[in-house]
Amino acid sequence: MNDFKFLEDGNITSVPGFLAAGVTAGFKRSGAPDFAMVYTETPAEFAGVFTSCLFAAAPVLLCRERVLKSPKLQAVAINSGVANACTGAQGLANSRRTCDIVAEKLGIAPEAVAVASTGRIGVQLPMDLIEKGVELAVPALSDDGGAAAARAIMTTDTVPKAAAVEVALPNGKITIGAMTKGAGMIDPHLAAPHATMICIAATDACVDKALLQKMLNSCAADSFDRITVDGDMSTNDTVMVLANGASKIRIAEGTPEAAAFQAALLKLLQNLARRMVGDGEGVTKLVTIEVVNARSTADAKVAAEAVANSLLCKTAWYGNDPNWGRVVAALGYSGAKFDPAKCDVFFGPLPVVKNGGDAGTPEETLVGVVKEKEFTIRCDFKDGDASYWVWTGDISHEYVKINADYHT
Amino acid sequence: MNDFKFLEDGNITSVPGFLAAGVTAGFKRSGAPDFAMVYTETPAEFAGVFTSCLFAAAPVLLCRERVLKSPKLQAVAINSGVANACTGAQGLANSRRTCDIVAEKLGIAPEAVAVASTGRIGVQLPMDLIEKGVELAVPALSDDGGAAAARAIMTTDTVPKAAAVEVALPNGKITIGAMTKGAGMIDPHLAAPHATMICIAATDACVDKALLQKMLNSCAADSFDRITVDGDMSTNDTVMVLANGASKIRIAEGTPEAAAFQAALLKLLQNLARRMVGDGEGVTKLVTIEVVNARSTADAKVAAEAVANSLLCKTAWYGNDPNWGRVVAALGYSGAKFDPAKCDVFFGPLPVVKNGGDAGTPEETLVGVVKEKEFTIRCDFKDGDASYWVWTGDISHEYVKINADYHT
Repeated sequence: MNDFKFLEDGNITSVPGFLAAGVTAGFKRSGAPDFAMVYTETPAEFAGVFTSCLFAAAPVLLCRERVLKSPKLQAVAINSGVANACTGAQGLANSRRTCDIVAEKLGIAPEAVAVASTGRIGVQLPMDLIEKGVELAVPALSDDGGAAAARAIMTTDTVPKAAAVEVALPNGKITIGAMTKGAGMIDPHLAAPHATMICIAATDACVDKALLQKMLNSCAADSFDRITVDGDMSTNDTVMVLANGASKIRIAEGTPEAAAFQAALLKLLQNLARRMVGDGEGVTKLVTIEVVNARSTADAKVAAEAVANSLLCKTAWYGNDPNWGRVVAALGYSGAKFDPAKCDVFFGPLPVVKNGGDAGTPEETLVGVVKEKEFTIRCDFKDGDASYWVWTGDISHEYVKINADYHT
Repeated sequence: MNDFKFLEDGNITSVPGFLAAGVTAGFKRSGAPDFAMVYTETPAEFAGVFTSCLFAAAPVLLCRERVLKSPKLQAVAINSGVANACTGAQGLANSRRTCDIVAEKLGIAPEAVAVASTGRIGVQLPMDLIEKGVELAVPALSDDGGAAAARAIMTTDTVPKAAAVEVALPNGKITIGAMTKGAGMIDPHLAAPHATMICIAATDACVDKALLQKMLNSCAADSFDRITVDGDMSTNDTVMVLANGASKIRIAEGTPEAAAFQAALLKLLQNLARRMVGDGEGVTKLVTIEVVNARSTADAKVAAEAVANSLLCKTAWYGNDPNWGRVVAALGYSGAKFDPAKCDVFFGPLPVVKNGGDAGTPEETLVGVVKEKEFTIRCDFKDGDASYWVWTGDISHEYVKINADYHT
């Protein structure tokens, strides 16, 4: 790979030509920042993947339309606190009106504005707060506003999540930066899209819309689609990437530069996806589930996802309980085709199941693995050569506390 | 329907000719009863449905063999505390040996004995405890031992669950009694079998094996298959029904008697299934999810099951939060095909969603419904005439406590 590095304290405004802001408009009762904007003076090529929930929120419907019809984007406005989902024609009109307000204030075309929303479902967007947000955010837009924007899109997130990478290509350097939110209702499947996760990424590379969409599909499938917090998909999941071309470095399909760009985008999105699980609602542990040597990728995927979403596995991990019976039960009911009598399971490096039965590692030794903040459970079907992995978290008392009280 | 009634304090020994016992063999550290036996001197026709988990436990493998090969059953032995799952050839040999011990003590054929186990996965059956259990149980077998047997099969259950029904047919009276256990790892799909739930039912009707199996398949599909506690299917799920014919009343296929018998069996199993959810691990509320007017039963089923297993819905119910956004999100990601703009949702009698948007019922009013111990959420797709319903529970702090500590 070409020279590649993560930038210290990188975020979306680490990318030349992108400005951002995060302000308090009043959507959150707490008074925390709740309205963010990203802006590029040079119109950007763009791509997006969205929730596959049938109840897709108004801002998702609008963004899908932009992906289909708008040649370029210049601004994205994101509010946190109200999802504008299940809000019907009025909701869609409010998302359109948000674009109009942003466009007017910035002096650009409404079609060049996209929106994203997160928060409570079923409530109409308070348009006075949108107006106030735009009023405050536009003058606040700056080339070091990325951190503030990342903070303003948070809901139950405990930390803002942003990053940027720099790739040195033969013909020069390009940057990709992004911010993301999402701590609950997280089980995105974006390539064939789902979760409320929102991720807005930006780059100064010159990339055609079609190629950018293709690369985003692939990178989302190997990053956000690999995570689950609670197995619930959201109405508002949105991942968009904007390419303003400020670097003048062209990324053409099929070139080594395209491969390097895609690899960098993937690493950036994986970094953010992994941090989303780590900051998932009530999550105390990040667990990687790997299924290897399966008959097909589909078999490996359903098996890995069954373990990753098993409430009994997740609560056992929370309790430092190396209860592998719950893991094999989940593999067994997943629908994956494999021979249980050939199945091995490892907790970290330690064998726990050998050919479908107890591998004999003492429980006290296994406890050492599941006590860690991060560990891997590897399931080897010895039945083919396909594999899949996912990142998941545990389910804790804090999760129940957050979700028995917090209204999304 | 013919004259039908639930018997007061009914259980499996309410059925003429069936004896039962529950004793303490030592499988549970607590010293609570943990070994049960059911016995009929007259050999019984029988039928069974079992887990569809690929890691089916040794006792399940043995019972499947009995269903295929044994003409009649006389005894069932059930231990609680060790599941004998993922125990390989040794595990299967131990289940066979259990049958031998029971058969020898009772003076019957080993092929007339079935077994069921529940408890920790991956541990070999302590055969000395099996011997002790049989030694104690056989002399304790009695025609009022049903309640003790129901208690001995419990794991995290807080109450024993047993019932019996009596049906007056034109040619006489028949009785069906049953006991069941299961509080966690509960999401049975038994007709195409799954959960650790165990249910042993008995009747004094004369029913052919083939007809009994057909009726059990149908009744399990409309009872145990309709419940979920945590969405996890077990390695050990077992439902068996024994018919010893002591009443001399024959139930022939296609007759009004067969219809009356099947209706009674269904009511009995539904009664027990519903109580299993109510006594599910940490469950504080029993929620019925109904999806009506869907395009197909398959659409109605995946939609109802998505809501029933949504962690966000379940924690909201626990929190008395009438958060319908989580319900529509789950409907939307379920994979069911429907038009969200036509979807109505009701909490109890109150409209919460009308044509995909807020129906306008004040939240304070809705809280009144979700505060109840039992309520129904009805989702009307107005898109066809198929329907499906499931019973589910909430997820509480107690659930996390039980499953972060208890080793299954």
